[in-house]
Amino acid sequence: MNIKLIIAYEGTKYQGWQRLKGKEDQTIQGILEQVLSDLLEETITIIGSGRTDACVHACGQVANFHTKKEIEIASLRARMNQRLPADIQVIELQKVEDSFHSRFDAKSKIYEYHIETDEKADVFTRTMVYVCQESLDRGLLREAAKLLEGTHDFVGFSSKMVDGRNTIKTIYQIEVIEQGSKLILRFHGDGFLYHMIRIMVGTLLEIAAGKKPLSTISEVFRTKNRQYAGKTIGANGLKLYKIVY
Amino acid sequence: MNIKLIIAYEGTKYQGWQRLKGKEDQTIQGILEQVLSDLLEETITIIGSGRTDACVHACGQVANFHTKKEIEIASLRARMNQRLPADIQVIELQKVEDSFHSRFDAKSKIYEYHIETDEKADVFTRTMVYVCQESLDRGLLREAAKLLEGTHDFVGFSSKMVDGRNTIKTIYQIEVIEQGSKLILRFHGDGFLYHMIRIMVGTLLEIAAGKKPLSTISEVFRTKNRQYAGKTIGANGLKLYKIVY
Repeated sequence: MNIKLIIAYEGTKYQGWQRLKGKEDQTIQGILEQVLSDLLEETITIIGSGRTDACVHACGQVANFHTKKEIEIASLRARMNQRLPADIQVIELQKVEDSFHSRFDAKSKIYEYHIETDEKADVFTRTMVYVCQESLDRGLLREAAKLLEGTHDFVGFSSKMVDGRNTIKTIYQIEVIEQGSKLILRFHGDGFLYHMIRIMVGTLLEIAAGKKPLSTISEVFRTKNRQYAGKTIGANGLKLYKIVY
Repeated sequence: MNIKLIIAYEGTKYQGWQRLKGKEDQTIQGILEQVLSDLLEETITIIGSGRTDACVHACGQVANFHTKKEIEIASLRARMNQRLPADIQVIELQKVEDSFHSRFDAKSKIYEYHIETDEKADVFTRTMVYVCQESLDRGLLREAAKLLEGTHDFVGFSSKMVDGRNTIKTIYQIEVIEQGSKLILRFHGDGFLYHMIRIMVGTLLEIAAGKKPLSTISEVFRTKNRQYAGKTIGANGLKLYKIVY
């Protein structure tokens, strides 16, 4: 049996998605595997759609795992949720075709970056928001975001060269959503490099704050040089929103 | 000068609104007074619209304080928010008539109680929600809530007799709002006794779960006996929503 999971987590307390040797219980993958292995009395390895960094959240992470057992799907979600810590939750659980692979089959991904422009984040969502105290030109922000859309070599917007990896990615859309004093940047792309969204957001905010010119975007594309891009912005504003299959 | 504040807080970590001797920094009032006294270099005492219990939240608590200083209103909110912990926030701050009193002038109050009926609370709002795993008859819940509306002696729905206090209160409306697996009960009344909302919610849930008959409501009104009402439900689902002046 091949089981697909949709998972939500508040990443604040964790070292990220990927299982780390000796620190399994500080990772989302490690904790899910432990709970599943206990419940199914079988060593379970799960495949995630992709990694998320330490402190990054998700409301739509997808993973799948294979089991030899014929398990009762109906109750497994509830049994998992009862064992999982309060900040990790299985939203959906379903049996899928044996061939389904949460990483290889992902067609595109949507991430959100939440920014509070007031001096303080809303108390109820404060762990999921980056507070930006600088005065931002929202028109300029939208203009800069538009320049990132399309197919480009994003290597200059990523944290380290991964030899041999394809660094050409397509961003279908960057939506800039204004909710009162909050700004949400929603990135829809076919995939994202290491730290790519956080560096793009850092660059967009520096442009919108007047610290870097709009031409920064094309300069980073042209030179493929990480040095010209903005800072890697805090992880806590980032949320894996949806994986599209 | 008389200054009115609208305050939001996540109550999880606190002993409640009211200042406690020797535990000032475990109370919302105590922390606000400390921050204001530091900023204004004057001993400030604030008057809250009413108390909230330990772990109870607020998005619309109101308070006021008097100061002899002519202070710059414009920057005070930001200066307070910078000093306050991340789970306490000043939403609004304004100069008001000298005669304004946040408690005596309150015309009515609105509280919300948030219930998750799924096996697990949403990871992002889990500290503000009570998880109820029992199967609830929502029609019955609405019917029982209707019986609580109006003017009654609510002493049987409160935690302890407060001699001399008026226990006759008016509930204008109890809205039952369904948001997917979440239920929100919104109470609008001229005032609420100690633990009154939590005991009403406990009673409503026991009725909706079939553990108590619908007649419980009228029995508690008739006998004025706390013993007939339901349990005092957890504080973390409760939020002071708005004070109406």
